[in-house]
Amino acid sequence: MKILFHAFSILVLMIWPASGANAQEYRHNLMPTPAEVSFQPGKLAIRESFSVAVRGHDDRRLEAGIDRAVRRLEGRIGTELRRGVATDAPNPTLVIECREASLPVPSLNEDESYSLEVSVGRATLKAPTVIGALRGLETLLQLAESDRDGYYIPCVKIDDKPRFRWRGLLFDSSRHFQPLEVIKRNLDGMASVKLNVFHWHLTDDQGFRIESKKYPKLTGMGSDGLFYTQDQAREIIAYAAERGIRVVPEFDLPGHATSWVVGYPELASAPGPYQIERQPGVFDPTLDPTREEIYQFLDGFFGEMAALFPDEYMHIGGDENEGKQWDRNPQIQSFMKERGIKNNHSLQAYFTMRLERILQKYKKKTMGWEEILADDLPKDVVIHSWRGPDSLAEAVKKGFSGVLSAGYYIDLSYPASNHYRVDPVAADKNLSRQEEARIMGGEATMWSEYVSPETIDSRIWPRAAAIAERFWSPRSIVDVDDMYRRLAVTSVRLEELGLTHEKNYRSQLRRMAGGKEIGPLETLVSVVEPVKQYNRGQQRPTTMLSPLTGFVDAARPDSEAARNFASLVNGFLADAPRFQTNREEVERTLAKWRDARPAIEAITRRSGLREVEPLAAELSDLAQAGLDALACLVELKSTGPQWREGKLAILAQAAKPKPSAVEFAILPSVRQLVIAAIELPQLRGQPPLEWQKRVKTLAEVARTQ
Amino acid sequence: MKILFHAFSILVLMIWPASGANAQEYRHNLMPTPAEVSFQPGKLAIRESFSVAVRGHDDRRLEAGIDRAVRRLEGRIGTELRRGVATDAPNPTLVIECREASLPVPSLNEDESYSLEVSVGRATLKAPTVIGALRGLETLLQLAESDRDGYYIPCVKIDDKPRFRWRGLLFDSSRHFQPLEVIKRNLDGMASVKLNVFHWHLTDDQGFRIESKKYPKLTGMGSDGLFYTQDQAREIIAYAAERGIRVVPEFDLPGHATSWVVGYPELASAPGPYQIERQPGVFDPTLDPTREEIYQFLDGFFGEMAALFPDEYMHIGGDENEGKQWDRNPQIQSFMKERGIKNNHSLQAYFTMRLERILQKYKKKTMGWEEILADDLPKDVVIHSWRGPDSLAEAVKKGFSGVLSAGYYIDLSYPASNHYRVDPVAADKNLSRQEEARIMGGEATMWSEYVSPETIDSRIWPRAAAIAERFWSPRSIVDVDDMYRRLAVTSVRLEELGLTHEKNYRSQLRRMAGGKEIGPLETLVSVVEPVKQYNRGQQRPTTMLSPLTGFVDAARPDSEAARNFASLVNGFLADAPRFQTNREEVERTLAKWRDARPAIEAITRRSGLREVEPLAAELSDLAQAGLDALACLVELKSTGPQWREGKLAILAQAAKPKPSAVEFAILPSVRQLVIAAIELPQLRGQPPLEWQKRVKTLAEVARTQ
Repeated sequence: MKILFHAFSILVLMIWPASGANAQEYRHNLMPTPAEVSFQPGKLAIRESFSVAVRGHDDRRLEAGIDRAVRRLEGRIGTELRRGVATDAPNPTLVIECREASLPVPSLNEDESYSLEVSVGRATLKAPTVIGALRGLETLLQLAESDRDGYYIPCVKIDDKPRFRWRGLLFDSSRHFQPLEVIKRNLDGMASVKLNVFHWHLTDDQGFRIESKKYPKLTGMGSDGLFYTQDQAREIIAYAAERGIRVVPEFDLPGHATSWVVGYPELASAPGPYQIERQPGVFDPTLDPTREEIYQFLDGFFGEMAALFPDEYMHIGGDENEGKQWDRNPQIQSFMKERGIKNNHSLQAYFTMRLERILQKYKKKTMGWEEILADDLPKDVVIHSWRGPDSLAEAVKKGFSGVLSAGYYIDLSYPASNHYRVDPVAADKNLSRQEEARIMGGEATMWSEYVSPETIDSRIWPRAAAIAERFWSPRSIVDVDDMYRRLAVTSVRLEELGLTHEKNYRSQLRRMAGGKEIGPLETLVSVVEPVKQYNRGQQRPTTMLSPLTGFVDAARPDSEAARNFASLVNGFLADAPRFQTNREEVERTLAKWRDARPAIEAITRRSGLREVEPLAAELSDLAQAGLDALACLVELKSTGPQWREGKLAILAQAAKPKPSAVEFAILPSVRQLVIAAIELPQLRGQPPLEWQKRVKTLAEVARTQ
Repeated sequence: MKILFHAFSILVLMIWPASGANAQEYRHNLMPTPAEVSFQPGKLAIRESFSVAVRGHDDRRLEAGIDRAVRRLEGRIGTELRRGVATDAPNPTLVIECREASLPVPSLNEDESYSLEVSVGRATLKAPTVIGALRGLETLLQLAESDRDGYYIPCVKIDDKPRFRWRGLLFDSSRHFQPLEVIKRNLDGMASVKLNVFHWHLTDDQGFRIESKKYPKLTGMGSDGLFYTQDQAREIIAYAAERGIRVVPEFDLPGHATSWVVGYPELASAPGPYQIERQPGVFDPTLDPTREEIYQFLDGFFGEMAALFPDEYMHIGGDENEGKQWDRNPQIQSFMKERGIKNNHSLQAYFTMRLERILQKYKKKTMGWEEILADDLPKDVVIHSWRGPDSLAEAVKKGFSGVLSAGYYIDLSYPASNHYRVDPVAADKNLSRQEEARIMGGEATMWSEYVSPETIDSRIWPRAAAIAERFWSPRSIVDVDDMYRRLAVTSVRLEELGLTHEKNYRSQLRRMAGGKEIGPLETLVSVVEPVKQYNRGQQRPTTMLSPLTGFVDAARPDSEAARNFASLVNGFLADAPRFQTNREEVERTLAKWRDARPAIEAITRRSGLREVEPLAAELSDLAQAGLDALACLVELKSTGPQWREGKLAILAQAAKPKPSAVEFAILPSVRQLVIAAIELPQLRGQPPLEWQKRVKTLAEVARTQ
C-alpha cells in the first residue's frame, strides 16, 4: 500500500543539436511526463534495420506488445520493419531487459516502473515486469520524432514509475451501449497514456449490459438486446490484460436499478411493472434491502460475475439513492423501526454491509461511490469520491482507501485544463502521510447520456490524456500551456489506434450539410463547445433513443480556436496602451468570423439546420463587437453609455442558452476586449504599468461574468 | 433465366416548385437511377410524426430493414422518430405493402422489383418480396432531401427493377485480411446502392482466410492467424442475407494455391516446404490434378464449405495457372501422355471437371474465372470474365452463363467514368437475344494487394456506386457528368454507414505530418492519384507485410480537384479565341498550386517525407507552366521553340514514374493548356469556329500523350 511520490524537477527544455549544426530548443512530446527524464545530445535513427531483442524474461504478452509497438512505428515511418524479436541479432536497435512475468490478471500491486536509456547506437528498456516494459514501449513510441532525415529517438535517460497506482477511465455502457470495437480502441488509447483501470459501468436505469446466464431476464428484458455476452466480456478482459489494464465492473445498486427490475420486479421496493428508462436523470426504482430473497438473488448474480471478472475489485455503485420507494413502503418502514435503523442512509449501509459479505465470500473486495461510506464497513472497501474531495479526505481519515473522480468528469465538457489542475491529493485537507497514501488514484468518468459510438471518442480524447498525466506524473508537472502543446501532438498520435476524435466531426458536418462543402460550418463549429454540466438536457431535451447527430454532437469540448484566440487577445491587451502586439491577427480572426455568416446561412437554409442558423448571426455580431472594441482600444477612444449598452446586449444575446445546446467558447475573450474598451481608455495619461495592472484583472472579470 | 432489359427514357430533369413560389429545375440524387421515375410537384415532409405501417406480408427481416432505414433518416434530421411499425396507426407516413417473404438465403432468382409512390400525404412502397421492399427503402432514403423547412421526400412515382440479377463486389480477404467490421460496413454500402453479391475471395497465395475444422493446417499454417472462424463467416452470411446480399465464396484453385500447400505440401505439384507468399504477383505452387488423394481432400474440404456457405454457387478460381510445376513434374507429364491430355489447359479442364463433380455432389453450382472455359463443362457453370469481354461472349455463345469483371477492376485506380462506360453487354459481339440473356451481370473487383482496413473503403467507394448503377439501371443511363454530380451526394450518404472513404485520408496525412497542420498536404494530395494498373508494385515495391501508410495510400483515385480543373480548362479553351470564360478561376487555381510549395516543403522536411518532397516542386513547375500557357493564350502570343521545349520538359518531368507511386491527375489539363498555347496562336486571323474545332481535338491529344 506504499504510494510513491515524486517531485523531482524535470528537465523539459534543453539544448538539442538537431542535425549537428544549429543548436535549438528541444521540447519533448511525452504524455504523461516521466518521473525523471533527461535528454542528451544525439539521436538514434530508426531505419529499416530496426530490431528488438529481449534479454531476461520473455513471454507472449511481451512479444505481442513489442509487435504492436513496432507495427505502429512502421505505420509512421511507412517502411516495413522486422517482425518478431531478434534475440540472437548481434546489434539490436532496442534491447528489452525484463525481470519477470506480470500476473495474468493485472493487479493493483503491479510494478509498472521501467527505465529507458537511448544512446546513438542503441535503446535499452529495463523493467522488473512485463507490464512495466509495456509502459516503457509506449514512452518509446512517444519519443519517436522526425526531421528531414527521417524518424529518430533522441538520446535520453528516463526513470519512470507512476505516482498513483489506480489510474482509471470509467466507461458507461448503460446509457448508450458501445460495441466491442469502440471499447477496444479506447483500451488502446488508455494504454498509450498509461491508464490502467477500465471501470466498466455495466448496469443503470437505462440498460443492463452484461449477460447473466443465471438471470437471463436481466438482459432479456432490460437491454433492448444491446448487451455483452460473457464471451465478449472475456474478450474485453483479455484485450485489456494484454495491455496491463484492469477491468473493474460496476453493477450499480441499490438505486440506479430500473434495468434490474424490468425483468425481476420482485427485487424492487415498490410493485412493478417497470420499463427501461429512456430519460437521463435519477429515478425511483430501488432494490428492497429488507427481504432475504434479494440477497439470495445477489449471491447468485455476484457469484456468477465473480467467476467472469477476474479483478480483485468489484464496484457496487451505491450512488444517488434517494430512497423514495423506501419511504413509501410500509414493510420497509417497519423493518427499519424493528431494527432501529434511523434513516435511509443507515438502511443503505445495512444493504452495503450485506452485499460486501457476499463479495467477500467470492473473494472480491468492494468499491462503491462515496454514499456507501459508513464507519463499520471493513477497511479494505474502496470509497469512490464523485461529489467533491471532502468525502475522499473523510474516507482516508477513517482508514479506507479512496479513488477520486470529482474533478475528472469529462462528460461535463469542461476543458482539459480544469481537470489538469485538480490533484487527487487536495492541498487543504491536512492529511497525514499515511492518510495520503490511502488515496490510490483517480478515474476520469465517461458517463454516456449524450454519446454515441460516433462521438464518444471525441468526448474522451484528447482530454483524458491530460488527466492520465495528472495520475501518473509527479505533482510538480503543472504547466498548462506546455500540457496543451503536448496534448495536440498526443491527440494525433491517438488517432493511429483507430480513435475517431479528430476525424468524425467533419463527416458529421457533411451529413448535416448533405454534401462535401462544409468549410463554413467548420468555422462555426470551431468556435463553439457543447454546453457544460448537464445543461444540454434542459436546452435540447433528448432521450436515450434520440439520434446524437446534432450540431452539438459535432462540436467538441475544449475549443482549440477559442484557446488560441484567448492567447492572442491576452497578448494584445498586455501590450496596453500601445495595443499593437497580435493586433493584426486578432483583427483578421474576428473579421473571418464576422464574414462567415452568409456562407453558413447558405448551408443551414439549404439543409434545414434551424437550430444552427441563428448561431451565424450571433457569431457575426460577436465578432463585430470585438472588432469595434479593438478599434476603440487602438485609438484610445472613450466609449459612451450607448456603445456600452449595445455591446453588452450583443454579449448577453450570445451568452443565452440556445436550443442547439452549444455555447460560444470565444465569448470570454470578446467580453475581455469589450470591457477593456470600456474601462481602459479612462486610464489615459497614466503610465503603462497602470494599464497593464488593470488588464490583468480583466481576464478574470470577463471569465466570471 | 429471363433477363429484363429496360431502356425507358427517364425523366431526370423536371420543373419543381421547391417552396411553392419559384419554379426551379429538379435534379434527383438517386444512384442507381430507377428503371422508371417520374417526379411530380409537391413534397412529403418528414416530421417527428413519421411512422411506418406494414400491410400484407411482414417478417423480422423486413422490420429490421425498416428500423435501420428509420434510424438513418433520424440521424440526418436529428430528431427521434417512432420505433417499430405502426400498422394500426390511422395515418402512417409510409405504407409498405409486401406480398411475400424472401427465401432465408438470398438467391439469384429473387424478385427485387418494387414500386414507390410518394404524394403530399403519404408514401407507398409495394414489392412482391421483402428484398424488393428493402431495395425500395434504400431508394426512399436517397430521395430524402432538405430545404429551409427541413427534410422531405419529393412527390414521385417509381417503378423499378434491376437490369441484371448478378451485381457483385469481389472482396479479397487474402492479400490483406480485413476484420469483420470492415466487411459489415461495406455490406451496408453495397445494400445502399443495390449490389447483391458479395464475392468473398477467401484463399490465395498470400493467405488462407477461412477456418476448416477438417483441415486445420490450412489456416493453422497458411494465415498468420488472420482468418475467419466458421462462426464469423456465418455472422457475415447472416448480415448479408438480412440485406438481401448473397455471399459467394471463392477458393482459388489449382493455381494461386500457396496458402493451401503451406500446411499440406502433399497437395502441390512439386515438393515443399512452402511458405506464405509475401509478394504480389503470380506464383508457381499449383495443386497436382493427377493424384486421387487430391480429390479426396477437396471432397472433404468442399463438403465442409458447402455446409457453411448456403449460396447455390461456389467460385473455384481457376485463373492464372501458368502450369510451371506441372511442366517440371515427370509424373504429371506421363499422366498427361497416358490420357492423351495435350496441354496444361486441358489438364486444368480435367481438374475443373473433377472438381465440378464434387460440387455437384454437394448441390453447388460451379463458377470460375474465364480460364476454366472448356466445351465439355456442364452448361450451368458460370464463366467469370476478367481479361476482357471476348471470353464472356465466347462463353454465352457456347451456352454458358457469364459474369463480367473486365472493366470493373476498381483496384487499378481508374476513375469511375472508365468503369461507368463499360456495359456488361458489349455492343460489338453480335449476341443473340438468348445469348445476351446469359450475361447475368457483373462484379467490381477489390483485389487487396495494396489496401488495409484504413484505406480499403476509399478504394471501393464511391466508385463502386457508379458501377452499381451500370448493373442496375437501364442501359440508356450514360450521362457521365450527371453520374459524377450524383456520386458526390452518394459518397456523403455512404458515410452514414460508417464507411471511411471520405474521412480517413486526413488522419493519414496527420500521421504523416506528425500534427494537425495538414492544409498544404491536403492541397497536394487533392491533385494526385495512385498510379494506375499495378504500376505501384514497380515504383514503390512493398510486400504484404509492409505498412500501407504512404502518401499514395492517402491519395485517392478519381481526383475531384482534377476533374473540376479539367472542366474549367475545357470551358476556358472552348471560349477561343476570346479566352475569358473561367479565366480567373483557372488562374487562381494554378496560382494556388504553384504557391503551395514552401508550405508543403516545410512539412515534408520536418517529417522526413522524402518521397513527397519532390512533388511540391513538380506541382509548382506544372502550375507555372499552366499559367504561362494561359498568359500566351489570353494575349494570343506565339510561343517559340525554346518556350515549347521548356514546357514540354516540365510536363515530361511531372509525368515520370515516381518513388511515391502517385501521378498528377491534373497533368492532362495542364498539357492541354500548353499544347493550346503552342498550336492555337497559329490560327490568328481565322474565324472563331476554326479555333474551336482545333480546341476540340486538343483534349484527346493531351490525354493520350
